[in-house]
Amino acid sequence: MTRDPDAAPDLIAGIRNGDRRSLARAITLAESTRADHRELADEVLETLLPDTGRSRRIGISGPPGVGKSTFIEAFGTHIIDRGHRLAVLAIDPSSRRTGGSILGDKTRMAELSHREEAFIRPSPGRGHLGGVARRTREAMLLCEAAGFDVVIIETIGVGQSEVAVADMVDLFTLLVSPAGGDELQGIKRGIMELADLVVVNKADGDLAAAAGRSRADHAAAVHLLRPRWQAWATEVMACSALTGLGIEEIWDAVGRFIDAVSASGELAEARSRQATAWLWSEISDTLIDRFRADPGVAPMLAEAEAAVATGRHTPTHAARMLLDRFTAH
Amino acid sequence: MTRDPDAAPDLIAGIRNGDRRSLARAITLAESTRADHRELADEVLETLLPDTGRSRRIGISGPPGVGKSTFIEAFGTHIIDRGHRLAVLAIDPSSRRTGGSILGDKTRMAELSHREEAFIRPSPGRGHLGGVARRTREAMLLCEAAGFDVVIIETIGVGQSEVAVADMVDLFTLLVSPAGGDELQGIKRGIMELADLVVVNKADGDLAAAAGRSRADHAAAVHLLRPRWQAWATEVMACSALTGLGIEEIWDAVGRFIDAVSASGELAEARSRQATAWLWSEISDTLIDRFRADPGVAPMLAEAEAAVATGRHTPTHAARMLLDRFTAH
Repeated sequence: MTRDPDAAPDLIAGIRNGDRRSLARAITLAESTRADHRELADEVLETLLPDTGRSRRIGISGPPGVGKSTFIEAFGTHIIDRGHRLAVLAIDPSSRRTGGSILGDKTRMAELSHREEAFIRPSPGRGHLGGVARRTREAMLLCEAAGFDVVIIETIGVGQSEVAVADMVDLFTLLVSPAGGDELQGIKRGIMELADLVVVNKADGDLAAAAGRSRADHAAAVHLLRPRWQAWATEVMACSALTGLGIEEIWDAVGRFIDAVSASGELAEARSRQATAWLWSEISDTLIDRFRADPGVAPMLAEAEAAVATGRHTPTHAARMLLDRFTAH
Repeated sequence: MTRDPDAAPDLIAGIRNGDRRSLARAITLAESTRADHRELADEVLETLLPDTGRSRRIGISGPPGVGKSTFIEAFGTHIIDRGHRLAVLAIDPSSRRTGGSILGDKTRMAELSHREEAFIRPSPGRGHLGGVARRTREAMLLCEAAGFDVVIIETIGVGQSEVAVADMVDLFTLLVSPAGGDELQGIKRGIMELADLVVVNKADGDLAAAAGRSRADHAAAVHLLRPRWQAWATEVMACSALTGLGIEEIWDAVGRFIDAVSASGELAEARSRQATAWLWSEISDTLIDRFRADPGVAPMLAEAEAAVATGRHTPTHAARMLLDRFTAH
C-alpha cells in the first residue's frame, strides 16, 4: 500500500516523529495559495495544535549591517550545543523565493545549517505582511509540533515586520551596533519599545570601548520607558558574535526571562493575547480583501483614495460612498 | 422667515463667519449617533472642506500628574497673545459627558477659557477609540473652517489614544516630568517614538537641576532613534508652565518645525497620508462592526475567541469558521 506523503495522517505522524521532510512539506502546504493545500494545512495544524507551544520563541531584529546572520550562527550553535533543537525562520515580505532573503542563502549560516538539530527555513516572501506573518506563525507551530524547543524568528526590518514578529514571539531581541547614537541611521522608530533584550554586537577589538558606551546609552534610553512586563525589565548586553564573548550570558538571560514571566503568569497571558490578536487580524485582512475585490467597490477605489489624498472629499464621506457600493451588503 | 439653525446652509455660513454657536452645534451633530445628524454633519463637512487645513495642528500627551492642563493654559495664552485663534480639543475614550475628562472641567483652564479667541471643547467620550478619533478629527476640521489657526489636541493617554492623536496632527509633543528616568511609571511604550518635541515641565525652583538632567536623558534617548522627518530632528526642551520660563521657546520651535517640514514638502505628504489612513480605518471599523453584528457570526463569536485564547483552535481555523458564517456573503 503506497503511503501518500501529502495525506494529512502521514504528515501528522511524520511531524510527531520529528521527520524533517514531513515538516518541510507541511510548511510548504501552509505557504501555498491553493485552496486545497490550505485546507490540508489547516487540518494538519488543527490536529497538531495540542503538540505545539513547547518552545522558547525568540524574535531577532536589527538594522542592516549589524551582523544578524553572524549572531544567529553563534547564538544558534550555542543553543544546540546545550542540547536543544532549534528552528530558525524569517519574515521578509520583500524576499524572493530564490535567494534575496538572508536565510535564502544558507552559506551565510553555514555551520548552523549543517547541524541536524537545526532547521532553517527562508521567509515565505511574496505577498503582503499579514499573509507572510500568518505563514510564519504556522511554520512556527509546525516546528514546535516536530519537537523543536527553541524557535528564532528573524526579521529583515522592512515596513512593520518587527511588530509582526513581536506579536508572535515571547522575547524580542534588538541587535544594535557599537556606534550607538552616532550611527547614521539610528534605530527605526517603534522598535526600541518592543525590545525585551537589547544586544550590542561587535564588542571586540577596536570596538570594545564603543560597545561599552553604546550599551550604556541604550540602557539609559530603555530606563526611561515603562516596563512591558511586571516580572522582567529590559536588559542591555554586549557580545561579540565573532569571538563568542557574551553569547552564553545572552542565552542565560533568555532563560531568566522565560522563568520570570512564566512564574508571574504573564507569558501565558501574552500568548493568549497574541492568539486572539491573530484571529482578528485574519478576520480583518479577509474582510478588507473581499471589500477591495468587490465588483461594486473596485472600480471606485483609486478615485476615492485620490480624492481623499488631495482633499476633495472627507475620508468619512468617501468611506461611506464606497461602503454603500459594497454589493455583498 | 425663521432661520433653522440646524439647516446646513445656516451652519455653513455661521461657521465661515467664525460664529461659535454654529461651530459648537456642528460639532455636536458630528458627535451624534443619529443617522440624520451624521448626514447633516457630513454635508456640512464636505462643503467646508476647502476652508479647512489652515492651522498648525499640535498634539500634546504626557503621563498623569505631569501638568498638562497648566501647560496648555500657559502655552495657549501665549499663542493667543501672539494674535492667533486657538481651539483646544481632547481625546479620552473613557470620559463621561458630565465632567471626568480634563477638559470637561473648564475651571482647570480658567484663564484660557475666558479668552474669546479660544474655543475649548471636551472629549467626545463614550465609545471605542475609532469613533472618538473620527469625531475629534471632524471637530478639528470644523474649527479650522471657523478660522481657528492653531488647534491643540490633548490626550489623556488611555489605550492607543496617543497613536490616534499623532495620526491627526502635524507636531506631536510629549510632556515629561523632571524626575526623568527615576519616574515610577516611565513613558508608556510607543509614545517616545511619536514625539517631534519633548518638553520637560516643572523646570523651576527645586526641580530646575533635575529638569536639566531629565532634558539631557531624553535628548540622548531620542538621539538613538531614526528621525521621523528629513527636515526636522526631535528637540527636547524644558519649561515651567507656572513661571512661563521656556514657553516662548516652545512656540518658536513649533514655528521652526512647521516652516521646515512645509518647505521640504513633508507636511503636505504627511497630511495626505493621514487622510488616506483615516479612510481605511473608517472602512475597516465599519466592516468589523458589520461582521460582529451579523446574525450568522454574533452567536459564535465569544466561543470562537475563547477557543483561540485557550489553544483549542488555531486562529486561522477559527477565523475561517466565522467568515464562512458571515451571512452577507
